[in-house]
Amino acid sequence: MTNEFIFQQIKAKASFLCVGLDIDLEKIPSHLLELEDPIFAFAKAIIDSTHEYAVAYKPNLAFFESNGVLGWHSLSKIIDYLNNNYPNHFTIADAKRSDIGSTAKHYAKAFFETYGFDAVTISPYMGEDSVNPFLEFKDKRTIILALTSNESATDFQYSLDQGQLLFEKVLKTSMGWKNAEQLMYVVGGTKAEVFESIRKLVPKSFLLVPGVGAQGGSLSEVAQNGMNDQCGLLVNSSRGIIYASRDIDFADAAAEEAKKLQKQMERHLKLKGLI
Amino acid sequence: MTNEFIFQQIKAKASFLCVGLDIDLEKIPSHLLELEDPIFAFAKAIIDSTHEYAVAYKPNLAFFESNGVLGWHSLSKIIDYLNNNYPNHFTIADAKRSDIGSTAKHYAKAFFETYGFDAVTISPYMGEDSVNPFLEFKDKRTIILALTSNESATDFQYSLDQGQLLFEKVLKTSMGWKNAEQLMYVVGGTKAEVFESIRKLVPKSFLLVPGVGAQGGSLSEVAQNGMNDQCGLLVNSSRGIIYASRDIDFADAAAEEAKKLQKQMERHLKLKGLI
Repeated sequence: MTNEFIFQQIKAKASFLCVGLDIDLEKIPSHLLELEDPIFAFAKAIIDSTHEYAVAYKPNLAFFESNGVLGWHSLSKIIDYLNNNYPNHFTIADAKRSDIGSTAKHYAKAFFETYGFDAVTISPYMGEDSVNPFLEFKDKRTIILALTSNESATDFQYSLDQGQLLFEKVLKTSMGWKNAEQLMYVVGGTKAEVFESIRKLVPKSFLLVPGVGAQGGSLSEVAQNGMNDQCGLLVNSSRGIIYASRDIDFADAAAEEAKKLQKQMERHLKLKGLI
Repeated sequence: MTNEFIFQQIKAKASFLCVGLDIDLEKIPSHLLELEDPIFAFAKAIIDSTHEYAVAYKPNLAFFESNGVLGWHSLSKIIDYLNNNYPNHFTIADAKRSDIGSTAKHYAKAFFETYGFDAVTISPYMGEDSVNPFLEFKDKRTIILALTSNESATDFQYSLDQGQLLFEKVLKTSMGWKNAEQLMYVVGGTKAEVFESIRKLVPKSFLLVPGVGAQGGSLSEVAQNGMNDQCGLLVNSSRGIIYASRDIDFADAAAEEAKKLQKQMERHLKLKGLI
């Protein structure tokens, strides 16, 4: 899925919303727990109710892995459901993987071929040869962690090397890698003040922005400082949408929250003159 | 499993060998492919034939993930087999995960509770709060990537901040975290020259050392520069052992290679006066 295609979807929906599927068995409505696969049932209902307000879905793999083999079975059904029913939605495996090249090749195969995601998140700590195997998939997108949304992000991402912070070095260095046009970056919405300087380093890249909502980031600031002429933003909301209600009306409540965000995003897209 | 317990096992076996289970369906002997679960059958044979020469086993999760749900099923059977038959062997999920705290909690649950590994490898890029949830499991070990064995390790791990390289900062900073005594570190065997300076930063910690063998690292240099008074090393070999033969005699050939390494390790343990 190209950046151009994603931008077309953003314009068509007046939205740059990514819905994060951080599905926790302890938080989903209790009436679903009687079903054979509560996680898939929950995800399906959320997807069906929010798809017109969202351009992307991002299952968070930790939540599936903690349920063992059954969790992976649910994930597999969710990505198949998305690919079969909503092929224009951008799908992101939030995996944050990284390993030496010969191993990374297997991670790339897992997410791009075995499961069929459009994109995967990657940690940059191990450098270029750990990312290369993902970039060999020309029609896929590889999303590198730059500046994350958590408080301890500054522990190492703010290390200062010759006048540049580590996350800036990650942005700048990776832009020089082969097939860099397939890269996107994770930049936390809790750090809205840095979007302007980040845009100078990666003017054209899409940024996947977590941390707006439950973690406290501001959509307005992110949009004002981070938008480029293809929008260039995918703003993620997980908990704020999928757990808007834990009752029988959870899917409607999720749609309502997604719609609220979409309306705000529409305003920002208009302000920028993109729609 | 405590460092003291691991050291007892090292002395009892005169070995600090970790066997890496990077099991690739394209590389295992073809006669196994007819079985219901070739990956488990291969792993079981390798474990049974090498257990007396090894103190640890390290399944590399990428190789399981790339086989989808079936791969996770095989992994689950392998860790159960290890825990039921060889409970004194240290088991490491080579996962290299990292995420914000609320998500990392699910990864910790996945590897320590759902699957029952003794340890998991973690990427430090996101800082302390991404590692904390793993350190809450007092009887488990959390293994942080410090200096990895791949060529591109220097891209970011050698970033220089106030006179210290990023991997040195990772070592030094993390030693100050709560429950730091449960930490171990990945240090590539291809970088044997740095073990001496690393030992000054983390004198007591166990180091998990990949890169000896197929990747070119020297066991002698690693042992001479990296050993402490509890040995403090777990040297991993994957391909060199498990693919020593791709024929019907693969398990015997693996045992032979494991034994060769064990003999070299025995010599180093004696030189250091530990056995």
